[in-house]
Amino acid sequence: MITSRDVARLAGVSQPTVSRALRDDPKVSEATKQRVREAATALGYAPNAIGRALSVGRSTRVGLVVTDLENQFYAHVIAPMHQELERLGHELVLITESSEAAPVAEHVLAHGLCGVVLATTTVDSVLPTRLRDRGVPFVYFNRTALAVPADSVTVDPERGVRDLLADVVGQGHRRIGAIFGPRNTSTGEQREQVVRAVLDEYGIALAHRDVRHGPFDFRAGHEGAHALLDGDDPPTAVLCANDVVALGALNAAAELGVAVPGDVSVAGFDDLPTSSWALVRLSTVAYDLDAMSREAARLLVRRVDDPHAEPVRAVYPTRYIARATVAAPRA
Amino acid sequence: MITSRDVARLAGVSQPTVSRALRDDPKVSEATKQRVREAATALGYAPNAIGRALSVGRSTRVGLVVTDLENQFYAHVIAPMHQELERLGHELVLITESSEAAPVAEHVLAHGLCGVVLATTTVDSVLPTRLRDRGVPFVYFNRTALAVPADSVTVDPERGVRDLLADVVGQGHRRIGAIFGPRNTSTGEQREQVVRAVLDEYGIALAHRDVRHGPFDFRAGHEGAHALLDGDDPPTAVLCANDVVALGALNAAAELGVAVPGDVSVAGFDDLPTSSWALVRLSTVAYDLDAMSREAARLLVRRVDDPHAEPVRAVYPTRYIARATVAAPRA
Repeated sequence: MITSRDVARLAGVSQPTVSRALRDDPKVSEATKQRVREAATALGYAPNAIGRALSVGRSTRVGLVVTDLENQFYAHVIAPMHQELERLGHELVLITESSEAAPVAEHVLAHGLCGVVLATTTVDSVLPTRLRDRGVPFVYFNRTALAVPADSVTVDPERGVRDLLADVVGQGHRRIGAIFGPRNTSTGEQREQVVRAVLDEYGIALAHRDVRHGPFDFRAGHEGAHALLDGDDPPTAVLCANDVVALGALNAAAELGVAVPGDVSVAGFDDLPTSSWALVRLSTVAYDLDAMSREAARLLVRRVDDPHAEPVRAVYPTRYIARATVAAPRA
Repeated sequence: MITSRDVARLAGVSQPTVSRALRDDPKVSEATKQRVREAATALGYAPNAIGRALSVGRSTRVGLVVTDLENQFYAHVIAPMHQELERLGHELVLITESSEAAPVAEHVLAHGLCGVVLATTTVDSVLPTRLRDRGVPFVYFNRTALAVPADSVTVDPERGVRDLLADVVGQGHRRIGAIFGPRNTSTGEQREQVVRAVLDEYGIALAHRDVRHGPFDFRAGHEGAHALLDGDDPPTAVLCANDVVALGALNAAAELGVAVPGDVSVAGFDDLPTSSWALVRLSTVAYDLDAMSREAARLLVRRVDDPHAEPVRAVYPTRYIARATVAAPRA
């Protein structure tokens, strides 16, 4: 069995330098890293993550807590986050909230993860408190819980929503409906507040019967749009909590024979790849989800390395993308 | 620090029984498992995966090798596989082929995975040989490489493709085009062979200019359909290697103003959730991807437990689902 001692001897460096070089420690020069890597390759040495975890007192595995892995939003979070973590010498472990019998905090401890990215936080979630109390590093992704401060990567909906509503109201819509996200999420709450505040500036209030709330999923948009559009006097525009919800709404409209944007305008939030399909052409609010996902990975690794660093609050701006689902209402 | 010894004392069982009960070993009775779980919960005992890995000589982490995490096909593999592995007391670790600097086999050894599910095998792939030579258990998922026998979970395209082509030919199509998968994958090769063989029974041969090959992704369908449809004399039907390719083709048709199914019929393979959207209504070949993903997880865990078990070849049947993208060609 080849050990790091053998690699150290061949590379002419100390044993700790081998470990540091192989985990890409910035304190080791590129030339030394190169020499160590070549020696490791020549000897067929594979550093064992379990051994490494024991030697440095922690694992290199980062948990990402999500709800539904089949929700396409998460695919566009997981892919860049996975890549960034790999670049940093870490591994991504997926944790789904729904399928967990044991609370997530116990799962994290049981599986020896070095930290967690939380993508499913609700404002009343106990998880941040538990993680803090047990000393597990974590980063809020997309959603936050104010009660427990931590590094966070979030979106500021203001600019994008303001420009979206300028388009919607400018096209002549007055009876506007909405399928908002859950009230117990910071994203759902914040987007709803911005929509209501901006519409208030135009002197428009959402009628109670034109508003639905639900999870950020296809079904919420599908059922919500069926409820809003399948009546005698539907709203002329439906604002959706995110793109997946909007895709549910667009499909409901197609099922009902309600033309978009002829009979109803629909808007989303996220600008997922599907939204720019020629079959969809969803008008939506965009931001850099790829960069956000990578930044969350970097913040988590930094937090693991330095538990006492000042918390970072990274806020990403939004912009409106007008495509084909928002137009003037029928006269 | 609470140890398994404390849990054993409280539950009135031996220490090895605690470990077996907590990893849901079928040899332990449900009553005993229940007692051990209650004792563990009462004491706040969290079995440490690293410690467990050392004590049983292996980890509980299973790698899934995929190409592109943003390809929606994989979301519908990852979700059920993750859930099934969790149920079996294992964790899923994602390994992307493209982003790996080091070969996957080294990655698996370096990270102490107990086994791997291969979802990206090519017929000339060296990975199965490397894994076999290093004694790493693995299961072929969807695609196989005949040279190295192992447990496999695959699809038999015959029934579904035969019924699809009966529809296409029955509707009157004679100039049929295709965007096939890569020739170096068992799935691409097999589906192409079945399509050509069945069309041959109808006396139809695919014209060379009507055939494209490419990866199983959106872009292959998008570019392939642009090439096939943007000419003076396009085929009246385009068969696609899978649904993601077909979605690329449908969007290309929409961009070109080519009506589906009026100007061209399009068919897929997989029946992903997106394919049944009202906006899409793709005629396609279906099989139970959810059950396949779960079975691959179970076979891998079984293989880890019993390296000498007889290899299993699970083959899933297919069926054709006629939706709205296949119809008679214009007269």
